[in-house]
Amino acid sequence: MVTTHERLLQRPLQPKDGTAGIERPRGLLESVPEDPEPLLELASRHVVSSRQFDRAKLAQLFRLAAQYESTPQLMHLPLTGKILISAFYEPSTRTRLSFESAWHRLGGAVMSITDPKSTGIAKGESLADIAEMFNNYGDVIVLRSSEDQAVYDMLDTLRIPIVNAGNGIDEHPTQAMADLYTIAKWRPELLQGPVPEGERIRVGIIGVPSRMRTVRSLLLLLACFPEAVGEVVIVSNEPENFDAGQRKELEEAGLRLRVVGELDPVLPELDVVYINAIAWVGDSFESLGSGLHLTRESPLKPGAIILHPLARGKELATELDDTPHNWYFAQARGAVFIRMALLTSVVRRISAVMDTPEE
Amino acid sequence: MVTTHERLLQRPLQPKDGTAGIERPRGLLESVPEDPEPLLELASRHVVSSRQFDRAKLAQLFRLAAQYESTPQLMHLPLTGKILISAFYEPSTRTRLSFESAWHRLGGAVMSITDPKSTGIAKGESLADIAEMFNNYGDVIVLRSSEDQAVYDMLDTLRIPIVNAGNGIDEHPTQAMADLYTIAKWRPELLQGPVPEGERIRVGIIGVPSRMRTVRSLLLLLACFPEAVGEVVIVSNEPENFDAGQRKELEEAGLRLRVVGELDPVLPELDVVYINAIAWVGDSFESLGSGLHLTRESPLKPGAIILHPLARGKELATELDDTPHNWYFAQARGAVFIRMALLTSVVRRISAVMDTPEE
Amino acid sequence: MVTTHERLLQRPLQPKDGTAGIERPRGLLESVPEDPEPLLELASRHVVSSRQFDRAKLAQLFRLAAQYESTPQLMHLPLTGKILISAFYEPSTRTRLSFESAWHRLGGAVMSITDPKSTGIAKGESLADIAEMFNNYGDVIVLRSSEDQAVYDMLDTLRIPIVNAGNGIDEHPTQAMADLYTIAKWRPELLQGPVPEGERIRVGIIGVPSRMRTVRSLLLLLACFPEAVGEVVIVSNEPENFDAGQRKELEEAGLRLRVVGELDPVLPELDVVYINAIAWVGDSFESLGSGLHLTRESPLKPGAIILHPLARGKELATELDDTPHNWYFAQARGAVFIRMALLTSVVRRISAVMDTPEE
Repeated sequence: MVTTHERLLQRPLQPKDGTAGIERPRGLLESVPEDPEPLLELASRHVVSSRQFDRAKLAQLFRLAAQYESTPQLMHLPLTGKILISAFYEPSTRTRLSFESAWHRLGGAVMSITDPKSTGIAKGESLADIAEMFNNYGDVIVLRSSEDQAVYDMLDTLRIPIVNAGNGIDEHPTQAMADLYTIAKWRPELLQGPVPEGERIRVGIIGVPSRMRTVRSLLLLLACFPEAVGEVVIVSNEPENFDAGQRKELEEAGLRLRVVGELDPVLPELDVVYINAIAWVGDSFESLGSGLHLTRESPLKPGAIILHPLARGKELATELDDTPHNWYFAQARGAVFIRMALLTSVVRRISAVMDTPEE
Repeated sequence: MVTTHERLLQRPLQPKDGTAGIERPRGLLESVPEDPEPLLELASRHVVSSRQFDRAKLAQLFRLAAQYESTPQLMHLPLTGKILISAFYEPSTRTRLSFESAWHRLGGAVMSITDPKSTGIAKGESLADIAEMFNNYGDVIVLRSSEDQAVYDMLDTLRIPIVNAGNGIDEHPTQAMADLYTIAKWRPELLQGPVPEGERIRVGIIGVPSRMRTVRSLLLLLACFPEAVGEVVIVSNEPENFDAGQRKELEEAGLRLRVVGELDPVLPELDVVYINAIAWVGDSFESLGSGLHLTRESPLKPGAIILHPLARGKELATELDDTPHNWYFAQARGAVFIRMALLTSVVRRISAVMDTPEE
Repeated sequence: MVTTHERLLQRPLQPKDGTAGIERPRGLLESVPEDPEPLLELASRHVVSSRQFDRAKLAQLFRLAAQYESTPQLMHLPLTGKILISAFYEPSTRTRLSFESAWHRLGGAVMSITDPKSTGIAKGESLADIAEMFNNYGDVIVLRSSEDQAVYDMLDTLRIPIVNAGNGIDEHPTQAMADLYTIAKWRPELLQGPVPEGERIRVGIIGVPSRMRTVRSLLLLLACFPEAVGEVVIVSNEPENFDAGQRKELEEAGLRLRVVGELDPVLPELDVVYINAIAWVGDSFESLGSGLHLTRESPLKPGAIILHPLARGKELATELDDTPHNWYFAQARGAVFIRMALLTSVVRRISAVMDTPEE
């Protein structure tokens, strides 16, 4: 066993080079002028839906995320003494660790709830009472729940902000921010105001907007940039892809939407290809059919980037990892920094990391 | 979904006003003169039973808790570098988070055990060996166990202090401290020495002292203030309410006890009404019968306060939440601060937060 | 219940005296000259196998562990802002808390994975993808897995160091370091170069080297000190005790090995007796037979020390706890300090605790 692995143990650990976008945040940082105002508006606010964000807030969040990503060793820790309640009533190691890592990097302390069976909910306690408990124990809550309604049922009682880390099939706004932050690192100019028609990007989304919370939240954020996103192409086998009113809301915001049934014919047109592992059907889920898989043989446009919120299944071949199309690892890495930026805003610590007017 | 909740997301978060007693700690702080001596006696001591406390220790713990509650942002963190072992062999999110929040607010680090199946106990390890392990890994232990005997079985081996966070049906002393701290914030003058007969309070306890650890511990603490508590009325449907010797011990300490079978007839006489969700019967539990419920129709004395250790079931109607009788939310909030005061004492850090004589 | 335990609650907590080796680290500290060089070589390296260590690295690790053990209150915390990912896919409270305590004492933050069922592995995620996730979320990983291969499967992807906390029946190198650190505190002169033939120690190991990861790792570390260890006696009932090549590798390194079937006849010859609770057989385990138990009646050599990685079963009688043979409690305590030394080295913080040449 050891001889096989001796090489790996001998090898010094080294950061990968820039293909996965790890070294791009500096470009983004320089292309967006600092403006604390939109982030100060997030102070002590809940973050439940992508609808709560606009172009200005997102641009400043991306800028602050890029600032954190460029200087991973913070000089001072702005959240020392602050407590995060990390409540994952639906288990998720990846999202939980991403949020907790973000909080720890800012110097804060974390209390985790990872076993739904040990909680008050399991004992029949109301969500309002649980919210009242959380008020007393922490400074901000991150909530993952398999029930769409759970986060909403807490709002009336909460006196500390709550961040939605995925509620049923409804929304997952911070994942969508991580997706868009990746696109912003790839093409910072998309944040700088109207993009000439010919340079706008075409985004393909493989999945079902009505049943995938990550897709639903991503579409709402893309709709904040209609002058940079030329078209969004939904690739889906389903007869019905949108909820009542969902498509109308997006189109009224200026997003141009197209739905196609097959992936390969449209792939050569796409600048960004977003793919996800699963779609929820009732309480269970289904994987994407093999016609919707990405492999090294897929006719990707040169320069196109692939996004995937991970964890992945068979729909995204590992043989793509070493290609320049792989921005999904940069996306996972960036998710920590965008959450740092959002949490800093929500707990009123923007003045610790940006120049702000006297308060 | 969003239109319904738009108002909640728009609303700025604001602390509730003082009805739930949140702003009362300053009154308590001013009515008790500071004296570090009783708290210094708690240094490096186990906290297993309410019997270990007296009037002077409780008054100073309440004073320090009120000091913490009045100034939530500590200037320096007295427990930096100290480690809490939070061992919940019987799952409990509420009590665990309360203790962990208290420790984190003091700047300490926490190691949690929340899955009993992964522990040495599940593998047949003795409690003495587990205690020896804990000696090496932390500075203080908080233990919740469904076995009365577990905490006692660790004492002989421990070289670091242990705090009982509920042991079977035996005791839950820090919950009782949180209960009494709430009463102290409501009527700080009760701590200032003998109260004239007519101004003493009458406390009603809906529950079974022999089978409820919270009630057992609360009665022992109430017995430290016989000159402030005129009478304790146990409201219970059971034929037998006390363990062998339990009633005698309380009465010898000066507590006047009465047992009644019905709630509503006695309710108009009660200044404090303590109610709990469940009573243990063997390994299972039973809820209180509907005759022992509190609702908006209950004939509560004007000015009476309701206490409940939470989580609640049907026995305490949510329609009471918005009335001035609701001190149970203040009680939950205060539980963090009283635990901060106790833990500061036990880990020998009183000198960091109070003026102490040279040691 | 209280009267029985009143004495224990009244008793002030006091550190045990030196019989269990708690006060020995100062002797070790003085007998090994400080040399940062071998520890600097561990910077950003994985720690998977005992094969990665040599005499010089071990001596300096033991010295730094002894330095930490001698001065438990660190003046400054060298790992402030660093994050440990504590991934226990095979549950283990003892090893997990030992690592987490080590990290917390150095000032770092911890994110724990304790419920294998909530992880990506359970959802079919590849170990390479999980390793990529870990790259983004922490500064070092501690991994416990019941699969031999899991830690190796992560190596190619990792850009942060991983420390093996037990992989199937393969290795458990930090446990072996804790074992040897105990021996080094007991006889610091064993670290100081060739020991005269008559003063070398004889180590008995009750267990099966091919099936016990702790034994496998310990033998590899003992093989770094052939001029101090006169002989290793394996005490086992099994017909086959070694894997293919295992015995040859050890003997080529200079270790003298003997296998015997009975414990009591050889016991009077042994200076160090190492015993473990269980041996793995497929997915299940078996306890040691009663002929391989240690009790107060066992013919132990005067001055011999017993080591046990704990948790223990019936093979090690508690009646030995109060004898000078008990160094297993010191071993458990020392495990925290040796892990502090190793983790400090791996995350490049040696310069914070030792005088190092300009880097």
